[in-house]
Amino acid sequence: MSRPLMVTFSAGSHGSWRVDGVTSVIGPSLALSARLQICEDESPPATDEAVWQLRGTVSNLRYTSLSDRSMLQASQAGLGRRAATRAALIPIKKNEAWWNLAQDERAAVFHEASRHIEIGARYLPAVARRLHHSRDLGEPFDFLTWFEYAPEAANEFEELVAALRATAEWQYVEREVDIRLSR
Amino acid sequence: MSRPLMVTFSAGSHGSWRVDGVTSVIGPSLALSARLQICEDESPPATDEAVWQLRGTVSNLRYTSLSDRSMLQASQAGLGRRAATRAALIPIKKNEAWWNLAQDERAAVFHEASRHIEIGARYLPAVARRLHHSRDLGEPFDFLTWFEYAPEAANEFEELVAALRATAEWQYVEREVDIRLSR
Repeated sequence: MSRPLMVTFSAGSHGSWRVDGVTSVIGPSLALSARLQICEDESPPATDEAVWQLRGTVSNLRYTSLSDRSMLQASQAGLGRRAATRAALIPIKKNEAWWNLAQDERAAVFHEASRHIEIGARYLPAVARRLHHSRDLGEPFDFLTWFEYAPEAANEFEELVAALRATAEWQYVEREVDIRLSR
Repeated sequence: MSRPLMVTFSAGSHGSWRVDGVTSVIGPSLALSARLQICEDESPPATDEAVWQLRGTVSNLRYTSLSDRSMLQASQAGLGRRAATRAALIPIKKNEAWWNLAQDERAAVFHEASRHIEIGARYLPAVARRLHHSRDLGEPFDFLTWFEYAPEAANEFEELVAALRATAEWQYVEREVDIRLSR
């Protein structure tokens, strides 16, 4: 990874992903659109065509240790697999209490209390994932997580999001929207 | 801290800080200007008036533990003290090797190998400091650190920057500019 990759998710009438549904998990939802376009490091389409746009950067690791990273790299799959015709975009905003924690306190919730990496690793390589950081950009959400999986892994994906939502970490989530897509 | 504070440092002919000098420590320098203007969470002045503009966000802690934070909070001073008429803006870019490290590897260089927080703490409260994160914004530098101190603390400030530049962490710095200011 050299420079962070800036990614814009643009909801409107264009894009290779069809939007199958938008649901609010916590807090206000986002508007439903027909399609979602993903722009990487390029000018996003003009805003007047978009129902909404969310930006985030694929940046350096914030909690992942060397041993976790080795484990993940050995088992994870990349985006864009031909069979992965289902996707989810899950924007999340954590509350002020989370961001006021020191690094070791956040790491303790993430690792020991919530087993965040272990939970995600159970569903590798079936569910591919890319995290985008939005908070420092002044965006309405802190993180945008993009998931891709084959239709046969749909149940596994539901298990994954349910397991994460049951963690101690999720008690700090004050807004979460769940956007499902297919192509 | 609620949302991250976006700060723009704008070099030109306006601003409350007079630029006393700009020197390159590692890599290309920045152009010298007469003054520096600091805009917090507001539209920065039009770019055609500025010699250069650098942006960063005052965001959540990335390496600081709860105990370090308590120690720092007990001894540090805020910005804007009347006696603190000297300042420095030190933009830094770390290399790809740094950003490719996992979180625990970066933390080990920062804490155990470099004693970054201990070094900074030696000069509290004389030298006030605010860190701005720039990397995820697609900026030319990764960090912008702003320091304020009284003229009587000038030698202490030189000791501080010299001590940091001698650390293992600084071997990952590939560009550093040192801008000195007064008001």
